[in-house]
Amino acid sequence: MKEVHKVWLDNKGAAFGEGPYKILQQVENTGSLHQAAKRLNMSYSKAWLVLSRCEKNLGFPLLERKIGGAAGGGSQLTPRGREMMAKYQNFRREVDQSLKKIYRKHFG
Amino acid sequence: MKEVHKVWLDNKGAAFGEGPYKILQQVENTGSLHQAAKRLNMSYSKAWLVLSRCEKNLGFPLLERKIGGAAGGGSQLTPRGREMMAKYQNFRREVDQSLKKIYRKHFG
Repeated sequence: MKEVHKVWLDNKGAAFGEGPYKILQQVENTGSLHQAAKRLNMSYSKAWLVLSRCEKNLGFPLLERKIGGAAGGGSQLTPRGREMMAKYQNFRREVDQSLKKIYRKHFG
Repeated sequence: MKEVHKVWLDNKGAAFGEGPYKILQQVENTGSLHQAAKRLNMSYSKAWLVLSRCEKNLGFPLLERKIGGAAGGGSQLTPRGREMMAKYQNFRREVDQSLKKIYRKHFG
């Protein structure tokens, strides 16, 4: 047996969590929300909706769109988007470790 | 902003969590799975299914059915069912406290 958990940030609605984190990670890797969605087997509109809800509930933008240009546009993280990713990653790592420990204490 | 979480026990499938905990709690209060489901605005068959899946994945029974008799039957927790409730309650309390603390550390 093991423990399984989902953790997310909420601000009168989902504000950040594993889903948006993975999308942002792929935007960092590919420079494009289209490519990010593709890599996650997710429709572009779904990925866009997930991030757009987070931005609404966080109150700041996570992505910056580059429009047009020779490379045909693309997306990149805003500084606050990068900061949120880093904070969430640290938070998530500590949550995972702590829950494993608490599980072992009670059920190990 | 705040953190929100769901935690459950898994053994090749959901084995215990908040849902079954609440059902068992109401069985303790009412002495009947029918009454328990009613109090939780849940159909009897749904409550039965939730517990039955847990029992399968845990490998032991949570409920004992009393059949017939003057009081018309009813259900009560098995000793291991009661033990699981107690352990889960302690586990859950510590998880809640720990996640609040970790959230404050990273986002407070």
